[in-house]
Amino acid sequence: MAKDDIANNNIAEPLITRHDDAGVARLTLNQPRRINALSEAMLHALQAALDEIAEDRSVRAVILSGAGDHFCAGHNLKEMTEARAGDDGGFEYFQQLFATCSRMMQTIVELPQPVIAEVSGIATAAGCQLVATCDLAVASEDARFATSGVTIGLFCSTPMVALTRNLSRKHAMEMLLLGEFIPASRAAEIGLVNRVVPLSDLAQETTELARRIAGKSPAAIKIGKSAFYEQAQMSLAEAYAYTGRAMAENMMARDAEAGIGAFLSKAPMPDWTGE
Amino acid sequence: MAKDDIANNNIAEPLITRHDDAGVARLTLNQPRRINALSEAMLHALQAALDEIAEDRSVRAVILSGAGDHFCAGHNLKEMTEARAGDDGGFEYFQQLFATCSRMMQTIVELPQPVIAEVSGIATAAGCQLVATCDLAVASEDARFATSGVTIGLFCSTPMVALTRNLSRKHAMEMLLLGEFIPASRAAEIGLVNRVVPLSDLAQETTELARRIAGKSPAAIKIGKSAFYEQAQMSLAEAYAYTGRAMAENMMARDAEAGIGAFLSKAPMPDWTGE
Amino acid sequence: MAKDDIANNNIAEPLITRHDDAGVARLTLNQPRRINALSEAMLHALQAALDEIAEDRSVRAVILSGAGDHFCAGHNLKEMTEARAGDDGGFEYFQQLFATCSRMMQTIVELPQPVIAEVSGIATAAGCQLVATCDLAVASEDARFATSGVTIGLFCSTPMVALTRNLSRKHAMEMLLLGEFIPASRAAEIGLVNRVVPLSDLAQETTELARRIAGKSPAAIKIGKSAFYEQAQMSLAEAYAYTGRAMAENMMARDAEAGIGAFLSKAPMPDWTGE
Repeated sequence: MAKDDIANNNIAEPLITRHDDAGVARLTLNQPRRINALSEAMLHALQAALDEIAEDRSVRAVILSGAGDHFCAGHNLKEMTEARAGDDGGFEYFQQLFATCSRMMQTIVELPQPVIAEVSGIATAAGCQLVATCDLAVASEDARFATSGVTIGLFCSTPMVALTRNLSRKHAMEMLLLGEFIPASRAAEIGLVNRVVPLSDLAQETTELARRIAGKSPAAIKIGKSAFYEQAQMSLAEAYAYTGRAMAENMMARDAEAGIGAFLSKAPMPDWTGE
Repeated sequence: MAKDDIANNNIAEPLITRHDDAGVARLTLNQPRRINALSEAMLHALQAALDEIAEDRSVRAVILSGAGDHFCAGHNLKEMTEARAGDDGGFEYFQQLFATCSRMMQTIVELPQPVIAEVSGIATAAGCQLVATCDLAVASEDARFATSGVTIGLFCSTPMVALTRNLSRKHAMEMLLLGEFIPASRAAEIGLVNRVVPLSDLAQETTELARRIAGKSPAAIKIGKSAFYEQAQMSLAEAYAYTGRAMAENMMARDAEAGIGAFLSKAPMPDWTGE
Repeated sequence: MAKDDIANNNIAEPLITRHDDAGVARLTLNQPRRINALSEAMLHALQAALDEIAEDRSVRAVILSGAGDHFCAGHNLKEMTEARAGDDGGFEYFQQLFATCSRMMQTIVELPQPVIAEVSGIATAAGCQLVATCDLAVASEDARFATSGVTIGLFCSTPMVALTRNLSRKHAMEMLLLGEFIPASRAAEIGLVNRVVPLSDLAQETTELARRIAGKSPAAIKIGKSAFYEQAQMSLAEAYAYTGRAMAENMMARDAEAGIGAFLSKAPMPDWTGE
């Protein structure tokens, strides 16, 4: 079927599109007919796009969105089911698939640039995990979120990693045990997204957020984002020792010297060098 | 006094009652004249009931409620005071009592089946801890919550373990330092309970929640609940390695194969085998 | 300039004032013309005041406030910039400065007495960290909070330690990446402060809270506050083992025996001995 060929990337339609503007890279999951499912190919394409951005100093903030009406429906269950034909019933394949997905999620965490999820329509299972994993998230009023795996016998165990590091326990457990959709307003209340806006304002809102971040010193952002996730895993004493060093190093950056100097002399902020 | 005899379990009235219906076990703390206090005998009775359920594959979800107007008033202070008569002023006894109580709380966390607290009236000290410990909690509009030990010179230090793993720090600290009651609406705001309903709807709400969970694959629920609490204590990289394995194993379960197959072919979900 | 002399503490105006009343010590950052910035001298003065209180059994609760219209504007950037003149560009100095600041923050955490932040006006950068670090916080309706370092090229990496231990991730990340002010009402929603009151009621509200805490057993409070932060860094099993011992020891305190005795006999609470 021609439609499937397109969806399967058998023609030139890329799985991930990237558009850069003024320091902001917009990555779009581009398989709307599959609700942008995280197939193996999609995971590899997203990984490659992130790896490229990690090395690209022209990018200061990233927006991650989904083409079409929805953000992302999670793993590609059809592809996973086909892997059951293997000698081991697919076990090896599944392990590798989840490792590939988890590596991509951790790449977002480790990326020097902040990543903003732009969510309309549904974000389910690993798609919901993607929202939780991004540094910030903005949802349209119609967006809905679920960790729905439990409904079909596959508990959302990898999504829970990102979920429980964002939500309080009872809220996370309710989503994971019931597998039901929650609306954007509830997602904002429980800390899964930062903001909810009308669908017509969604791209503008994420773009404005991204631009404000792109207007900061990339040196400071890189040090700070990395420290954020590192120190979160430490004891209080370790975290202070670690971030104390991070701040002293940040002070030695040319950007900090120029920025603080401008602040003290009430001058406008400098053009950041990123160093 | 006859009433005390009954309350002291000197006649056949059980401390914990259990009623099973359609895969849902309802456990009720059954000493309403003592506000269902967690006496040694009550702790042992609850431990025994939980141990039994852990091995009972017919149970897929648990509701924990209190007989009478209140949920649970925490430890039995009279019993504890009597232990002061011992050679060591009761120290050994107190250590053992808190270990017994903590073991019961951890049994709820480790139970393969989700546990829903059904809370009306007061839930104080270890009774409030019980609410925080359950996987989900529903409160009636009249319910009130306090970690009130500080008021009588005994800080709620074991309850804080469950509280701080559910609430943000300032909210937990406020409850622990002031020892004052918060209403159900506030408990919902700060994440201590999932939902608040009129008292007349309370049992129906918890029953519906429990039934929806009982309608899922017990294999998936068991893997997922265990992974939830395990990965919460790990670093991000460890958590992803651990849950990636958990999901691959979940994929090998017959329930997952049948559930995903039904989903892909748009058939109704299968009868779960629990394997 | 005479004004600067006063601000620089060249005359007798103390950097920190302390007023005790009924077991409550009120510490005030007293350099309003510098928006109570945490200069080296201010950090040392605050450290000394806290160290003194730690040993002072007459103090049962602490209020931390700022003189003038604002709470605290964070580090003294002018002083920091002057340190750049050193051979190493100030690196050693910065490391020591952040270590000094982090030590002071951890002293608040380790203080036997609870500390309540009383916040009006702005609380930025390390000033916002101070709010997050205190056990409780009350804000006036006009109060505003920001981790604004990112705006001038110096990411608020040490403030994030306190922030991320109070707020959920997306809320903390939004404050840290954007560096923008949030109003008191939002600070309450996301758990940065406990309560918001009209400015005219602010001192009364914190005083009442502090008095209620001062009216509890200092033995219980000391055991409980210490256990709170210790167990938060442990696994569930370790946390229960630790707090079980803490509660058994609390039971052996004279205050607990007297308080529980009074409770059981429906007598008023005793005068706490603190033992």
